[in-house]
Amino acid sequence: MAAVPLIELWRGGMLESVHSGHAVVFGPDGVEAAWGDPAAVIFPRSSCKMIQALPLIESGAAAAAGLSERQLALSCASHSGAHLHVQAVADWLAGLGMAEADLRCGSHMPQDRDENKRLTCSDTAPCQLHNNCSGKHAGFLTLNRHLGGGTEYVALDHPVQKAVKAAFEEVTGEVSAGFGIDGCSAPNFACTITGLARAMQFFAAAREGGLRETAAARLARAMMAFPEMVAGEERACTRLMRATGGKAAVKTGAEAVFVAILPETRQGIALKILDGGTRASEAAITALLIRCGVLDPAHPVVEQLIPSVQRNWRGFETGGMRLAPGFG
Amino acid sequence: MAAVPLIELWRGGMLESVHSGHAVVFGPDGVEAAWGDPAAVIFPRSSCKMIQALPLIESGAAAAAGLSERQLALSCASHSGAHLHVQAVADWLAGLGMAEADLRCGSHMPQDRDENKRLTCSDTAPCQLHNNCSGKHAGFLTLNRHLGGGTEYVALDHPVQKAVKAAFEEVTGEVSAGFGIDGCSAPNFACTITGLARAMQFFAAAREGGLRETAAARLARAMMAFPEMVAGEERACTRLMRATGGKAAVKTGAEAVFVAILPETRQGIALKILDGGTRASEAAITALLIRCGVLDPAHPVVEQLIPSVQRNWRGFETGGMRLAPGFG
Repeated sequence: MAAVPLIELWRGGMLESVHSGHAVVFGPDGVEAAWGDPAAVIFPRSSCKMIQALPLIESGAAAAAGLSERQLALSCASHSGAHLHVQAVADWLAGLGMAEADLRCGSHMPQDRDENKRLTCSDTAPCQLHNNCSGKHAGFLTLNRHLGGGTEYVALDHPVQKAVKAAFEEVTGEVSAGFGIDGCSAPNFACTITGLARAMQFFAAAREGGLRETAAARLARAMMAFPEMVAGEERACTRLMRATGGKAAVKTGAEAVFVAILPETRQGIALKILDGGTRASEAAITALLIRCGVLDPAHPVVEQLIPSVQRNWRGFETGGMRLAPGFG
Repeated sequence: MAAVPLIELWRGGMLESVHSGHAVVFGPDGVEAAWGDPAAVIFPRSSCKMIQALPLIESGAAAAAGLSERQLALSCASHSGAHLHVQAVADWLAGLGMAEADLRCGSHMPQDRDENKRLTCSDTAPCQLHNNCSGKHAGFLTLNRHLGGGTEYVALDHPVQKAVKAAFEEVTGEVSAGFGIDGCSAPNFACTITGLARAMQFFAAAREGGLRETAAARLARAMMAFPEMVAGEERACTRLMRATGGKAAVKTGAEAVFVAILPETRQGIALKILDGGTRASEAAITALLIRCGVLDPAHPVVEQLIPSVQRNWRGFETGGMRLAPGFG
């Protein structure tokens, strides 16, 4: 099966652009709804950070380091590199007796407007703390100090990444078809859209009890408790978690992947826009959160992420975004 | 016929994302090559600015105002709002006895890094001169003063836009299926991919002589003579026109449209990436310029726009971009 149209852009009453993709809603009894090819193999990219954080808790490393719920949320983040994110990662590393130089994520300019302006206008280069994955890497460093591994913790054969791969294959229920190197240099394991949705359903159904269930439940709860730590102001993940008020933990990934964990209904959602267009993955997850009953279609975030009316530089209506027929 | 895969993104030896679209190469004897649906109706957006500039010359307005070849290039531009663009439009308006307030394009932050930094760090709001379409609008104002029309020159029934529509339908060889309001508030008329390619072939074959042929030849020559005025440093249009050294006038349009005018071979090219992804439209036009023999596949711009090797924040190879099988 091929990807199917999910999101449309209209102008002057005519269809101008179309985004196609794959999406799966996975419930307690399996696949409840699917669009495109549920067996399509994708790279989850940053959408699987809560899976990559499972060993951090299961190993006892998080407890040994006394990590807070706020830090657990940050370990699942693709943050904006705002001051609060940079400071939180710096404090975390200091607590481990480590520093920015111990990170292996690389540096890039932050998305946060204020911090970006501060660096730009002072001709200051960003550091690894600004990398949107620095919280995940602080989690890797915390796990690594517990496991006693070497400093190159992003290597495929490093104990940290072996633990991540094992957890990833177990919660997706698949043997990974392969891996790619992510923007932050960590291995990113491939799975099917269904496997990713199955993993999210595991997080949604997890309750305190077994080791993995406890870890999964704590991570989902941490994401919902600190939505500003998982992304940042004006970001889709933060807006959607605030709008759903504890009913959904959501996470975006590069190249237009988006996932959602719905604890109340014990459902997991995973989607990938084939062309990598983020505007479409944000609109598609919004539509599925409404479909699953955890987001009020009248909430302002819906018009922000699925703009039925789009305006130009002078405020004139030019068109709008719509769900493709049969989607949502 | 549906859009077909044109550009692929690979990671870890696996296909991660795909961009589909429509493309047509139109020669002296008609369609020479096509991918996707040659009859697909699209909005050319800014890719048709050289068509919108035809009445400026044909009416005698450009001659009456003594426009330079550099100004004609600017009338076809989606410029970066760099200092040289802003100054050139300001001087043009002053020459008409007009000012920024006479423009109807609206304001947005410039893409040019230096000018953007200057405005950001001085907390200065952009003005309409920064709008990427301000050169086209200066052309509209020049034509309007010659025609004696009202101040709202972007209205559909205004003499300026009536002249633009007539020229558009004549060079595309089609009755427009409709129009949309563009980001700059001007009407943007719909046509088929083949119609847009036919129009570009008209520009490619045009030589000094008839009124319209002379206007088309002068605009294509102006674009190639002043590539930095048509877009800006680090922009695909400017890079590709410099790389093809007078063998191609190329122009991008919003939502991933790209066109090319090849005077030597009298060919016109038009393409649209269905999802609106600019990275793919830039790669696709690059591939077709190579196919048509006007761009050396070994030129550095090719690796810049079709990066066979993509690296992450630490410089590690993560994957690369490829042409889809059967394209290019």
